[in-house]
Order: sequence, then C-alpha cells, then structure tokens
Amino acid sequence: MKMPSVEKLEKYAELALRTGVNLQDGQLLMINSTIAGAEFTKIVARKAFEMGAKDVHINWGDDELTRMKYEYADQETLSDVPEWQKQQYTYFAEQGAAILSIRSTDPDLLKGIDASKVAAATKARSEAMAKFRDYTMNDRIQWSIISIPIPKWAQKIFPGESEDRAVEKLWDQIFSIVRVDRENPVAAWEEHNQTLIKAREYLNKKQYQKLIYKAPGTDLEVALPEGHIWKGGPSKTVNGAVQFNPNMPTEEVFTAPHKYGVDGTVSSTKPLNYGGNVIDNFSLTFKEGKVVDFTAEEGSETLQHLLDTDEGSRRLGELALVAHESPISQSGLIFYNTLYDENASCHLALGKAYPNNMTGGSDMSADELDQHGVNDSLSHVDFMMGSGELDIDGVLADGTTEPVMRKGSWAISFE
Amino acid sequence: MKMPSVEKLEKYAELALRTGVNLQDGQLLMINSTIAGAEFTKIVARKAFEMGAKDVHINWGDDELTRMKYEYADQETLSDVPEWQKQQYTYFAEQGAAILSIRSTDPDLLKGIDASKVAAATKARSEAMAKFRDYTMNDRIQWSIISIPIPKWAQKIFPGESEDRAVEKLWDQIFSIVRVDRENPVAAWEEHNQTLIKAREYLNKKQYQKLIYKAPGTDLEVALPEGHIWKGGPSKTVNGAVQFNPNMPTEEVFTAPHKYGVDGTVSSTKPLNYGGNVIDNFSLTFKEGKVVDFTAEEGSETLQHLLDTDEGSRRLGELALVAHESPISQSGLIFYNTLYDENASCHLALGKAYPNNMTGGSDMSADELDQHGVNDSLSHVDFMMGSGELDIDGVLADGTTEPVMRKGSWAISFE
Repeated sequence: MKMPSVEKLEKYAELALRTGVNLQDGQLLMINSTIAGAEFTKIVARKAFEMGAKDVHINWGDDELTRMKYEYADQETLSDVPEWQKQQYTYFAEQGAAILSIRSTDPDLLKGIDASKVAAATKARSEAMAKFRDYTMNDRIQWSIISIPIPKWAQKIFPGESEDRAVEKLWDQIFSIVRVDRENPVAAWEEHNQTLIKAREYLNKKQYQKLIYKAPGTDLEVALPEGHIWKGGPSKTVNGAVQFNPNMPTEEVFTAPHKYGVDGTVSSTKPLNYGGNVIDNFSLTFKEGKVVDFTAEEGSETLQHLLDTDEGSRRLGELALVAHESPISQSGLIFYNTLYDENASCHLALGKAYPNNMTGGSDMSADELDQHGVNDSLSHVDFMMGSGELDIDGVLADGTTEPVMRKGSWAISFE
Repeated sequence: MKMPSVEKLEKYAELALRTGVNLQDGQLLMINSTIAGAEFTKIVARKAFEMGAKDVHINWGDDELTRMKYEYADQETLSDVPEWQKQQYTYFAEQGAAILSIRSTDPDLLKGIDASKVAAATKARSEAMAKFRDYTMNDRIQWSIISIPIPKWAQKIFPGESEDRAVEKLWDQIFSIVRVDRENPVAAWEEHNQTLIKAREYLNKKQYQKLIYKAPGTDLEVALPEGHIWKGGPSKTVNGAVQFNPNMPTEEVFTAPHKYGVDGTVSSTKPLNYGGNVIDNFSLTFKEGKVVDFTAEEGSETLQHLLDTDEGSRRLGELALVAHESPISQSGLIFYNTLYDENASCHLALGKAYPNNMTGGSDMSADELDQHGVNDSLSHVDFMMGSGELDIDGVLADGTTEPVMRKGSWAISFE
C-alpha cells in the first residue's frame, strides 16, 4: 500500500498529539489502533516519545480477527468482556493518560453477520466499558479520535478506483479536511477553534427553548433543557483544564436535547455506519422524546437492534449544528464513517447525552440528569440529517422565533 | 515481503495447533505474536476457529515499539508491569486456554541499549509473570513456541542476501526443520516424538549420579539430583493429560542438574541471544554449583547482568542432550534464536529448573525443591555448549562410568 511522504505523516501525527489529545510532558499515552494502520501509528508513538511521553501503550485491534470472532464464536463468548480488559482501560484513565484512537475500519466489515449477534455483543461491550466511558464523556481525561485510510474503506468511498489510487485519494481528502496540508496545521486549528467557540458562545447566550427543523422528510421540534450548554471545538479537562480536541475533524457545535421533548419526524440524509453495517435512507418518528416509528431502505434490522439496545437508545442524546459549507460537505463525498460524515451535516444522536452539555451535569446523579431531561443509554450513535435544504428556527424564552440556519447555512455571522 | 504459499502456511498453522498446543474442541486460544507476523498469525487464528476454538485472543507485540520504549522511557516506567497485564495472562491460564507463541524477533533488537536498563526491565517482567510462569513450567496448561521469519532475523542468518531472498531461505529452513515439508507433518512428529521418548526412558532407567563433559574449553562435572526425571518431546498437562509439544522444533532430552553439584569450566559453542543482545564466545567456571568466574568475547556486560539477576541465576536449571546430527545442526547455520540453536546442540540453562524434572517436584515447596537440589530463579536462559567434539560420560550409582555421547553423537542406539 502506497503511503504519503513521511513528512506529511509526521505533520498529521504531531497535529493529533498537539491539537488532538494535547499530550503533556511526562504524560502516559494509550493509542487504540489497528495493525493495518501500524506504519502511521508507530510514527505517532515515536513523536509522542519525542514530545516527552512517559510511555506509549498501543492497544492493537484487527478488522479480520473481529470478523472471524463474529463468524465463529458463540453469543456468550462474544458478549463476555473479561475483567482484565475493563481494567486495562480504567488503568490508563486512572493514570491520567491521554487516549488517542486511530480509526481505520471497513464500513462493511460485519456485512452478512446476524444483526442480533452484533447488537448483543455491542451492548455487552458498552456495559463493560461504562466506567471508562464516564471518563471520556465527562472530559475527565484528554482524548481524541482521528481516522486513517485502509483500502476497503477507501474503495467504499471511491468505488471505481484501484486500491492504491483510492487510498491515495482518501489520504489527500483527510489531509485537506483535517488541515494537515496547511503550512501550520496547529495554527490553522487554533483559528478554526475560535470560530466554533464564537458559535457556541452565541448559542449559549440565546438559551433557545426549542429548535424547529424543516427539510424534505423532516418536520421536527426539539426542546432544549433549561441550563443546556453548547459545546464545540476544543474541550477542557475537568481537573487540569488542559484543552484538547476530541474529534478531528470537527465542524460542529452541539448540546443535549430534552429527552422528553422531541416530537415529529426526521429523515436521514447520509448513510449511517453502525457496528460494521450500513443503515441508509431511514426516518424516525418521535413522540414526547421517544422513537415510536421508523422506516429504513437499508439496514432496517440493524436499526431495530440499535433502537432496542435499552430504554435510552430510543431517545436523543445530542443535537449538533454543522454548516453545509463545511470542508467535508464541500468534498461532496460520503465517507461511511461517522467521524467524517457527522462533520459534513447537522446531526442528532440516539442514546446517551454528554453530562457536561448540562450546567453541573458532570456532578449529577443518574436521577438528577433524568430530571433535567438529559438522556442516558449504553449507546451513543450519531446520524446525519442536515442538507442544503434544512432550515432551523430557534424559539426564545419569550416565545419569539428567529432563524438559526437557512438552507443548511448559519443565519448568523460569527466573524 | 514475499510469503510462502498459503497451503504451506496452513500446513504449518495446523501443525502448530495440533502437534504444538494440541488445541481441543471448545478450548480458548491465546496467541502471542508480533504485528510483523500478522499474515501467518491470522491464518493460525482462522484455522483454530475452524478446529472449534471457543475464542482466539491475539496479544500483539511489536519490535519497533519495544525498542522505542527502551530508547525513551525511564527505568521506573520500563520496570512497571501494571496489574491488568498480569491479570491478562493469568486469566487465560485460569480459563484453561492453550497458549501459542509465534516468535519473530530481530536478534539485535536492543543493540546499543544500556544493558543494565534491559536487565532491570527483564527482571521486573519476570517477577510480574511469576504466577503465569508457574502454569507453563509445571505443564498446567498446553503451551507451545514456534518461530516465523522477519527480514532482520533472516538477514542476520543469511547476511549476504536481499531481504526477500533471506526471508525465503529462512522459511525453507524452518519448514524443513519443523517437518512442514513432509507429506504428513503431524505423523512425522509422532514418529520423532517416539525417538525422544525412547531416549528419555533409557536415561530415566539409568539414573546417572553424574555426567562428565569433555570438549575443547570444557571440562565439567554435573551431578544429577536423586529422583531426577528426563523429559523431552511431548509433554502432558498435569490435570487433563493432554499431550502437547512446548517447543517446535525440539530435538532435546533434558533434566534438572543438582544446583549445588556443578564443578569445572564450560565453553559456549554458539552465540546466545539474550534480551535483544548477543553474547558470544564465553565460558563459565563453576564451584559447588555456582558460577565463580566468566569470560566473554562479546556481550560481557549483558552476561554479567544475566548472572546478577538473582541468587539462582548463577546456578544451572537445565541440562539438555541433543545429537550433533540433528537436522538443525546439519543445516550448519547459526540462528541467533534459542529455540533453534538449542536444538542443534547440547546445552545447559542458567536459572530456574522445571519442577517436573524432579519426582513430585510440581507439588514441592520452594524449600523442598532447594533441598532436592532443584534450582529456582527469575531467569531461565539456555546456552549452547555442544559440538562434534563433545564427549559425555555417565556415572552410575555403583561408580561405574559409561559413555553417553561421543563426538557429539549418542553412544547408545534408540532404534
């Protein structure tokens, strides 16, 4: 597989370490990666050591082995997460490690595997990882997710191309979208973060009671809970106040919807890759926050299992606004990868809300979060519903309505 | 990197699973491997699932990352083995998993790294793995070690060759030595195991009090403890009586020397690869079982650290007889890999003895083992001292002396 120049890869590695997890001198780094991405991952590891990492642990996965397990192992085995695996994650969290996930997965990895098998295993792993997820979803540690190409993913995006050419084209797209091709990517990200900070500050001041979405196939009202907080761009760790970017790319500002205040229908605008399967052209109908009906042209069974994960997986946990003119949207590509597709489009997430999207939420009990309308679930799955035809209105406390987005673009300027 | 045909690799995989660990239907398999060996390792994993493995866990390592850690991390970090890592190994042992190690390491991996740093980290890992080692060294679980080529190892053996050609030649050697090139490798191993069983049974009946080694640079008397047991070829698990081959290749029969009964000098006949460094042309002088003097033309510092690991690392824990006409010896190659080189040559090991080389040893306390002359240590390091010039005599209980080996070959026939 042809790789980009070492200089380019090192630039990307440095960006992931500085702007992504913002690795500190003497800090531990855990990297989740696949062996298919070993070349780049080891460049990141060396760069981390050069930056003063105390140690680098790489937690290697492999697509092929994952699929093998689903093909051969029984349900009980697939659902069993041994204690040492849970302890591995909490160990790094407790040590205050930075966690970098370098993702590269075939969107069709689990095509043909029994959807209920995948759903049960995914749920079991979510349960097992609850303690660790609490660290990331509350920003108690620095974490970041980036993606790198593998042939099967690249050829899903560029189906006509040879393996080598598809991978090359995907690297080019990634470098452009993540600003690695800028002269100073770290500085470019600082500027970009400022724009996102302005947008979230504007929305935080507004404290809309409700957002009203209108687009072809979509007519949805989403209440926002009192005390909701818009986030976007960089996060800060709760204790150390270290700034980091959980996702690269990121183009969104997002908050927690009211789990009991969603009504109407929303239609997807991009395929959703969930657990190695694609769900496409689907719609969800909500009543008082809960999905009461759905349709899907592709992956209906997978969607059904996702909704059935638990009580909270039928309610919304995130509402995100992305301008339709974002660089990813401009690429005109469908990435079959949520990290990219969600940043091309306004989206919603089914499942758990980030507690820190609510004032004081990180310190609230499960009951308190529920009383404030903040959703809980084992799952958190973004789906894309933005387009150039989406209009969003905001309803203020006094009942006044004002435009937030028109034809998928901000109705406000954040210059 | 050019790989052998899939058929050949599958034959090797099947041999490792059947004759090596002897994987049982419904059994868990843990594979230790490196990402450089991913292609073969995944063939093994698939074959294991096809044979009915309950699940396959691959514990991936990477040479480059290992070296990076030694280059950058401090002593304390290198010596710290977190609890979850220990639990990972004991989890698989407690679950009754079969453990297959697929080794492929650059013999010069840690060249230039401070030897005391390597020694301290190796010792710390040995301490951390004590509980798990108890499972393997007492045959409480099925385990096996095999090797596969990587370019740096292959080019160390065939220094004049291109990467591809060196790797190809090493695969050919491995397939020949491990009998993968036979029509029915599993049957060939059964026959081979029978020969080793005959040799060990012969020696067990003899119950020599002492072996006397004579060769250029070697004049050594090694007492054998009362109740010593010769082992070799296949092992059997203590509880399930499942037969397995801990090493592939294996050409040795071996027993425990008396830890207080070794006197004289022994000279190495092949380089020893220890912890990523090579020790070559060295001699050890023993008095009452303990190394009191040593010389080394290469790797003197590494040898010093090895001897200084603990009290037991200056005493012998294994004595192995290998006919000089073994296939590995006939290859005329030096493999810089103990699994291969030890099976080309009579050898001794510094450090821990296998408790089951002593009657009832697996159930003895540390004190009892000591009283029986069975050595204990954190280390167990084989070194080669056999050659075509080695004569060994055995001294019987009545004081009679008889030839065991002459010019490196058995003085007895096991047909």
